[in-house]
Amino acid sequence: MISKIDHIGIAVKNLREAIETYRGLFGKEPEHMERVASQKVNVAMFRAGESAIELLEGQGGTSPIAKFIDKRGEGMHHICLQVENLQAAIQQAEASGMELITGLAPEGAGGTKVVFLHPKTTHGVLIELVVK
Amino acid sequence: MISKIDHIGIAVKNLREAIETYRGLFGKEPEHMERVASQKVNVAMFRAGESAIELLEGQGGTSPIAKFIDKRGEGMHHICLQVENLQAAIQQAEASGMELITGLAPEGAGGTKVVFLHPKTTHGVLIELVVK
Repeated sequence: MISKIDHIGIAVKNLREAIETYRGLFGKEPEHMERVASQKVNVAMFRAGESAIELLEGQGGTSPIAKFIDKRGEGMHHICLQVENLQAAIQQAEASGMELITGLAPEGAGGTKVVFLHPKTTHGVLIELVVK
Repeated sequence: MISKIDHIGIAVKNLREAIETYRGLFGKEPEHMERVASQKVNVAMFRAGESAIELLEGQGGTSPIAKFIDKRGEGMHHICLQVENLQAAIQQAEASGMELITGLAPEGAGGTKVVFLHPKTTHGVLIELVVK
């Protein structure tokens, strides 16, 4: 079962500038900032209720975020759904035709266990599933 | 102040097929379905904690959703944030350089009062603000 939207990831070119903008909208500083070397990404997180908006800046031009922006421009990059049981969620997703992206992201921000579902099998949405 | 992520809107070509896929992932039927004539959109909503995933199918080729898909393909279309005070939120957003899309969407699904912020001013994200 899906517990909640854990976060929405937004690909941005310049994290500092994006924080400036979203700090205004949220009326507060980001609650958390992190560099995730395994995914070559710098993250700033703004809480919104039980979920969060994560601004994602690539570390270097070969990072997945930089490549995404080259192709699509800045904007929504992925949705992360928190599930109760990762294996059960993967089975349900696969049974409905969704496919895992294998070999990607051994762990997400904070060191949690995650998998990604391929956008070609989810009507265009990169979906991350996480257990916490 | 931002209370929560109200929903994430996902643009899909065929609502029936998208419901099939997401029904599998969520392990349940959509909680709500609606036709919003003012926005030329058919909506199916799956709850995820305090938020929802809304699948959006355009009503006809001239609808905003159909035009979005023509240009960008299926995928994440907008984020809706629930705010406590719409006027205050608009002021905060504008003070940080975000701009309203005027003349769009007199009301959202369910007849609530909403405004949209232009993606060019939000690092590529179409943001809807709603009071409930």
